[in-house]
Amino acid sequence: PPLPKLPRSTLNDSLLPELYKWSLSHGLMVYKENSTPNEATMVPLTAYPTPIPRKAFEAAIDVQLPFNQLYAKISTVGTDQESSFISKVSSKLAKSDPTFTGKLWTLQRKLFNQPSLQSFNLGIFRSDYLIDKTNFSSIKQVEFNTISVSFAGFSNKVAQLHSHLNRLGLYDPSGKNKQVYFDEVPVSNPANGFAKSMKKAIEFYSASSTYTTDRELVVAFIIQRNERNVFDQKCIEDELWESYGIKSIRLTFDDVVNELEYVKNDDERRLIVKRTGQEIAVVYYRTGYTFDDYISEKDWDARFFLEQSFAIKAPNLLTQLSGTKKIQQLLTDDKVLSQFIGDDEELRAKLNDTFVKIYPLDNTEMGEMGKKLATDPKLCENYVLKPQREGGGNNIYKKDIPKFLSTLNENEWDAYILMELIHNEPSLDNIICRNDEIFPLPILSELGIYGTIIFDDKGGIYYNHCPGWLLRSKFETSDEGGVVAGFGCLDSVFLY
Amino acid sequence: PPLPKLPRSTLNDSLLPELYKWSLSHGLMVYKENSTPNEATMVPLTAYPTPIPRKAFEAAIDVQLPFNQLYAKISTVGTDQESSFISKVSSKLAKSDPTFTGKLWTLQRKLFNQPSLQSFNLGIFRSDYLIDKTNFSSIKQVEFNTISVSFAGFSNKVAQLHSHLNRLGLYDPSGKNKQVYFDEVPVSNPANGFAKSMKKAIEFYSASSTYTTDRELVVAFIIQRNERNVFDQKCIEDELWESYGIKSIRLTFDDVVNELEYVKNDDERRLIVKRTGQEIAVVYYRTGYTFDDYISEKDWDARFFLEQSFAIKAPNLLTQLSGTKKIQQLLTDDKVLSQFIGDDEELRAKLNDTFVKIYPLDNTEMGEMGKKLATDPKLCENYVLKPQREGGGNNIYKKDIPKFLSTLNENEWDAYILMELIHNEPSLDNIICRNDEIFPLPILSELGIYGTIIFDDKGGIYYNHCPGWLLRSKFETSDEGGVVAGFGCLDSVFLY
Ligand SMILES: Nc1ncnc2c1ncn2[C@@H]1O[C@H](COP(=O)(O)OP(=O)(O)OP(=O)(O)O)[C@@H](O)[C@H]1O
Ligand SMILES: Nc1ncnc2c1ncn2[C@@H]1O[C@H](COP(=O)(O)OP(=O)(O)OP(=O)(O)O)[C@@H](O)[C@H]1O
Ligand SMILES: [Mg+2]
Ligand SMILES: [Mg+2]
Ligand SMILES: [Mg+2]
Ligand SMILES: [Mg+2]
Repeated sequence: PPLPKLPRSTLNDSLLPELYKWSLSHGLMVYKENSTPNEATMVPLTAYPTPIPRKAFEAAIDVQLPFNQLYAKISTVGTDQESSFISKVSSKLAKSDPTFTGKLWTLQRKLFNQPSLQSFNLGIFRSDYLIDKTNFSSIKQVEFNTISVSFAGFSNKVAQLHSHLNRLGLYDPSGKNKQVYFDEVPVSNPANGFAKSMKKAIEFYSASSTYTTDRELVVAFIIQRNERNVFDQKCIEDELWESYGIKSIRLTFDDVVNELEYVKNDDERRLIVKRTGQEIAVVYYRTGYTFDDYISEKDWDARFFLEQSFAIKAPNLLTQLSGTKKIQQLLTDDKVLSQFIGDDEELRAKLNDTFVKIYPLDNTEMGEMGKKLATDPKLCENYVLKPQREGGGNNIYKKDIPKFLSTLNENEWDAYILMELIHNEPSLDNIICRNDEIFPLPILSELGIYGTIIFDDKGGIYYNHCPGWLLRSKFETSDEGGVVAGFGCLDSVFLY
Repeated sequence: PPLPKLPRSTLNDSLLPELYKWSLSHGLMVYKENSTPNEATMVPLTAYPTPIPRKAFEAAIDVQLPFNQLYAKISTVGTDQESSFISKVSSKLAKSDPTFTGKLWTLQRKLFNQPSLQSFNLGIFRSDYLIDKTNFSSIKQVEFNTISVSFAGFSNKVAQLHSHLNRLGLYDPSGKNKQVYFDEVPVSNPANGFAKSMKKAIEFYSASSTYTTDRELVVAFIIQRNERNVFDQKCIEDELWESYGIKSIRLTFDDVVNELEYVKNDDERRLIVKRTGQEIAVVYYRTGYTFDDYISEKDWDARFFLEQSFAIKAPNLLTQLSGTKKIQQLLTDDKVLSQFIGDDEELRAKLNDTFVKIYPLDNTEMGEMGKKLATDPKLCENYVLKPQREGGGNNIYKKDIPKFLSTLNENEWDAYILMELIHNEPSLDNIICRNDEIFPLPILSELGIYGTIIFDDKGGIYYNHCPGWLLRSKFETSDEGGVVAGFGCLDSVFLY
């Protein structure tokens, strides 16, 4: 369905001023680089919601709880420890990617050698999809994120913004200020869902404690140094406090070292904030997902200090490791998927339907196929090459792939996966608002579905929810979609 | 009562980061000069609420409805027109201040020559007080504002901010994160009160219309060019829309000329937005109160075009004229006050109690006294000299008064009033947060009480409310308190 086409004067005189003011006054903002703490700038966003086929949207929601459960299972080693699926995959990846996956795996192996104190885990996930342009009801998974998924706060606010602009009549091209979209701009509040899952986690934390304490139980947000995306995170802090009366504290790895300690004379390793005496029940990572987040061995020590504690981790190391691109590739093998999904053919087919072809670049049969596709100057045009990395800016596209691979030793190729490109139909009439400029250019949209799950180390699942979604868009001409980096922007869903 | 004294590290690590983030994400912001529309900066504010004696606070609230009524009466000429009190005062002021009061008066006289179309008026007032340090229950009126009173939106939010910081335990000097203030930080929502009075005004507008229309009735905010304080105003727009489903439109005087018209073939002069067909029921001025707001004759024409219309004005010209410093001075004369208050001795005493001595500088007995005080190098030290101006930066203090007067012809002195200085006890332990700096310096606080009133041109009063208050503070060492200009800052009330 076409978007409203506003005359330029209506856009400039009515829509944009309200869009800027509403966004800024409702916290849709980031800090600029090297900003002072008293100034903020609007996060890039679209002027309108983007049309998304209802069937595709519903299909994505429909598979979220099973995906949560799948990744919880993958992250659970039970008594198998080093012989479990995730351990075997991680230990292999550790060799081809020693600087990052290898580091995570080293910490995990140290944990295997200790008695596990906390058996509950919190997963806060986001499964990302593109809609296949050859079949508008078909969603294809880009990746499954198991650590530090962002924009739960902004997703809610952008949908509210678009809905507000619509209700004010500012989308009406006739100038009569009537609504043009109706109930088809759904609003979700994943930040509330995140907070709710943390509250639940705190309940499990308390219930499984050997003694009760009158220390205040709080959530620790482990954050990047110089974080600019603080206002998105603040939505979760606000939901924790306003909806559930739970306080939170923000700590960089440096702060972890300086401000926390384990309770003394106690082998439970409860995490305590030295200054306030608060007890950290949930460690929620908004850092630690990329190599650059660890600037020295001290940061790895800080991570280990947190992992060893009695706090519930969101996520723990195994859950983080389950989010590698390698695992995603392995799951496209039906034999691997059945291992975790079991006999439910229908469900397996449903999940499988969201997968595109992903190849390893190793010595297996699939791997040889992958190498052939990746090095062929023609065939490579339909693929993207991905390392075991998060955070954007790491992928190699199309004809750059053979060139890139030729700079590596073939034994290093194993650290990458080769993924079929998903072809997505651009939307033509939306407008990206970034800084004080507007860009009426074709965009591509990526739908993210959030998931929250509480599970234990014996395979039990205690809470499994889908608290909402996110739409991000980027210029059709851009490969990357990072919002804070300025490549992409926030959008909302208009169902048709 | 002393304010909490936080260790510097708690202030920097806990209180200030939350203060900045909460303020920015809740719209406590202004545009910087020449800002692009996508960036905003925190409005200056205090880190803590400021202690205010409960008795003084209650006394100020107590006189607000009578003050609303008093100023409504002063603004009502009935059948007297040019022989009324306000007309006689204004016509005299017009001579000594032809460039501004004179202009307003010229427009009003033109209106007197026309049949009046709209008999209802909306007053949105703020009465400002300082607390006399010799008697902590005694409030003294600084001025009574009848046009464009600001910070109704921010007042609510700063109280919420301080309350939020307190509930989070961030004021606790012990570091144990306990609340230190309890219910003594009251929160009011004057922006909602303003919106409610506008909604009421629209009801009177509809009720008094000769025909019903299916045009949408809206409020027009008449705003300054390059307004920076848009986020405060937006709170009122948001309240109108969210609480009452009423849309508003923002127009500069240029926009008034270009975008509005009277309904054609109709001698009711209903105001219509050409593009949307919306009908303006209430004209709400956030400009037009100072000489600089009118950059050419065209702006005066725009003002007149609005005044002539069927819309309810907030305020109309007479109500604006009733807010001059001259009227304030005249009301300190008990004979004048009785004229409007009548026999109610108790009420008259109550209002009178809030007045300090104010002298004219004319040829009356009081005027001769005023001239003596104003020109004496010693006596002048206890006075401030004020012109018939609004918006700050116009006053002359203490020993500057004789110097200043000597640069004028004595026949020009009449445009000024001489006001006794109110001596206010500084608060010592608060901190002003401005830009990214903090100033732990003594401050003086000014309490503003908002009032809304609907009255007609025959003396009827239909709605009279006090929707809240405002506390602004400034450095003890500064004469002026303009917040957006950077002299003063927003504060909240802690009652003791
Ligand atoms: N198979 C694909 N087909 C089309 N586009 C893709 C595909 N895979 C990735 N992309 C594009 O590249 C972007 C980055 O890829 P991906 O999300 O896998 O990387 P990442 O490093 O994990 O980034 P992040 O975690 O920050 O999202 C995606 O948002 C999408 O726009
Ligand atoms: N009598 C007084 N005693 C002490 N201080 C005063 C007195 N009158 C004014 N002031 C100080 O000067 C400031 C400005 O005075 P006033 O409010 O009368 O001027 P204004 O031009 O109407 O400004 P605005 O309408 O922007 O508040 C006050 O906020 C107060 O700080
Ligand atoms: Mg991604
Ligand atoms: Mg990712
Ligand atoms: Mg004032
Ligand atoms: Mg004033």
